[in-house]
Amino acid sequence: MTSTLPSLLISIPEGVLDLGWGHPSPHLHPTEALQIASERVLSQQSTVPLQYGAVQGFGPLLEGLAHFLSSQDAYGNLPVDPASLFFTAGASQGIDLATTIFARPGDTVFVEEPTYYLIGRIFLDHGLKVVGVPTDRDGLDVDALELMLQDGYRPRLIYVIPTYQNPTGATLTPERRHRLIQLAQRYGFTILADEVYQLLHYGPPPPPPLTTMDDPDHGCIVSLGSFSKILAPGLRLGWVHASSGIVQRFVDSGVAASGGGLSHFAAAMAQSTLDLGLLQENLDNLRRVYTMRRDAVARILSTDLAGLLDFNQPDGGYFFWLTLADGVDADELLPIARKAGVSFRPGTAFSSVGMFRDSLRISFSLYDVGDLAEALSRLGQAIRSA
Amino acid sequence: MTSTLPSLLISIPEGVLDLGWGHPSPHLHPTEALQIASERVLSQQSTVPLQYGAVQGFGPLLEGLAHFLSSQDAYGNLPVDPASLFFTAGASQGIDLATTIFARPGDTVFVEEPTYYLIGRIFLDHGLKVVGVPTDRDGLDVDALELMLQDGYRPRLIYVIPTYQNPTGATLTPERRHRLIQLAQRYGFTILADEVYQLLHYGPPPPPPLTTMDDPDHGCIVSLGSFSKILAPGLRLGWVHASSGIVQRFVDSGVAASGGGLSHFAAAMAQSTLDLGLLQENLDNLRRVYTMRRDAVARILSTDLAGLLDFNQPDGGYFFWLTLADGVDADELLPIARKAGVSFRPGTAFSSVGMFRDSLRISFSLYDVGDLAEALSRLGQAIRSA
Repeated sequence: MTSTLPSLLISIPEGVLDLGWGHPSPHLHPTEALQIASERVLSQQSTVPLQYGAVQGFGPLLEGLAHFLSSQDAYGNLPVDPASLFFTAGASQGIDLATTIFARPGDTVFVEEPTYYLIGRIFLDHGLKVVGVPTDRDGLDVDALELMLQDGYRPRLIYVIPTYQNPTGATLTPERRHRLIQLAQRYGFTILADEVYQLLHYGPPPPPPLTTMDDPDHGCIVSLGSFSKILAPGLRLGWVHASSGIVQRFVDSGVAASGGGLSHFAAAMAQSTLDLGLLQENLDNLRRVYTMRRDAVARILSTDLAGLLDFNQPDGGYFFWLTLADGVDADELLPIARKAGVSFRPGTAFSSVGMFRDSLRISFSLYDVGDLAEALSRLGQAIRSA
Repeated sequence: MTSTLPSLLISIPEGVLDLGWGHPSPHLHPTEALQIASERVLSQQSTVPLQYGAVQGFGPLLEGLAHFLSSQDAYGNLPVDPASLFFTAGASQGIDLATTIFARPGDTVFVEEPTYYLIGRIFLDHGLKVVGVPTDRDGLDVDALELMLQDGYRPRLIYVIPTYQNPTGATLTPERRHRLIQLAQRYGFTILADEVYQLLHYGPPPPPPLTTMDDPDHGCIVSLGSFSKILAPGLRLGWVHASSGIVQRFVDSGVAASGGGLSHFAAAMAQSTLDLGLLQENLDNLRRVYTMRRDAVARILSTDLAGLLDFNQPDGGYFFWLTLADGVDADELLPIARKAGVSFRPGTAFSSVGMFRDSLRISFSLYDVGDLAEALSRLGQAIRSA
């Protein structure tokens, strides 16, 4: 049946190359691996994937994922305990549930300036006050955070993207990670660490996830991982990685107790890809392809677009954060760019107070190198004519 | 990989027939239909099911489900508009999200006494006060509700199961439905109508879902449906059915905007079963099997267990609500029953204030007729020895 209603979140006007979407390329979805996985899951005549799942998550995948993560450079090859994991219906649902569990309306949540542009809506749905904390090329500015706390701010939560930040691509230094955790312990707030890009490094691995530095008995960190970035977003499957006390809070939540494990069937599919080695294969492929794209974008930016903008090359993830030279305004540039057949996400979208008018985010996840080159050529043209 | 962690929510001690679980029998899961559906979804080399989905839900299934529901006797063959649907990750997640959207901590939510035993935890997670409203054999006691409102109660929400209530099996009369909606409009509260058993009728259809009686412009009803009861719980896929203004509130929610359509891959699977006629086939089969079981349980209760308890035969759904004769206490009966190799959910589990000590809920969804007969024989034995 053809439908007049959209199937997908993404929507791009005809003729435009839209660098604004942080979605993977269609041809990067591992259709074949998931075909094999679903056949395996269903052809064993097991009805387990179709029944209500265990509250913490599908047991074999809790163990399988713990083992998988432990083997990853990006986890510092540190042991991950299955008891430290809880499956979510994606990182966004995990953050929504964490907000229900750890905050109350009127509470303050700190976010990075700039931060992931859709996160604020989740916190606003829960009646939270969203307050920005400055960042720089090393991620969250921990000195600024400490000053705000000394000034009397008492956040209940802080939402950070420590590794390959969205939108800036910055990675928080190990020293700042330590200080952030010390501040959370001293002032009693919970850190929501969105670490969905952790496994997408295009060179040496990043520091291990924040949770690995947490106090195992009095944890203050909820780390969020996602199969959206390493397998397929459509599965709506992610995980919380935290100390056992925090995992218990999720297990005790009403929504998990009532419906059983979130994204249960998807978890059985993911477990099958893991068992067959297809998850590692897919991750290796993603890293190989994204590395090429990242390199191509960096090369074009520093040659064809030299002098038009500043940027830092990201070591992983999906994004370049560009700062325009000569006081060009990204909001004003956008319609000009669209006319030239290219689009992006302007910097103001990532600020709760309208900052970053001179900046913009481009993603290299959706297009191949050829399309990226064409898109950047159009972008250069648009900036020159702005 | 074998796991020491559980895969499923359900857990039953060796040797016990546990009538406490409202889960479908393993052999009722349509493994073959979903095998065909997943092959179809993935073998067309479409990557659409693997990408981020449209916020309201997978378009073809919004249209397909609207068409399917419109054709059902249990929907009074009334037209269902795709614009009145929003996909959830199951009814529990839908209720959790509705609570985020429509309530704030400190608000009161009314529930039926007795009500679904796990629902209270979702409301408590959101800081709500849960207050019970009496029910009788025709469902929610609307006179009692009106008196409570006149007494000054100002609930923000009321959670009701109008059709084949869990646990009592009762169905709210059309006249009471009208009055409930009038009261919601007059006192300004939102009705969360858990209508997941709507399509499981074992005789004439029930009154159509509550939403079909709502004001299309100023709606006050969120009706919740679920593929858990008509396809497979493991898919974690359900729907909200409501006026367009209410659907918009769900579409605008941060969690849907950020992660895209909930249970997107599962929705593509469900759409495939629908397209191929397998959903209707499965529903017909479930109704056929559950009718036999319902009839068998009713026959055994009114013959072999006559004099030991009272019950009303449910016209649909999963449950019988039994009231014990002679002041037998269900909480005290439970350990005796377990020793006799049978279990159930005691009445007190369904009350926020410890009512219904003389009652218990048994489900006929999990076991076949032979096991149900054996379980009831053991239950009779236990009651006689209590």
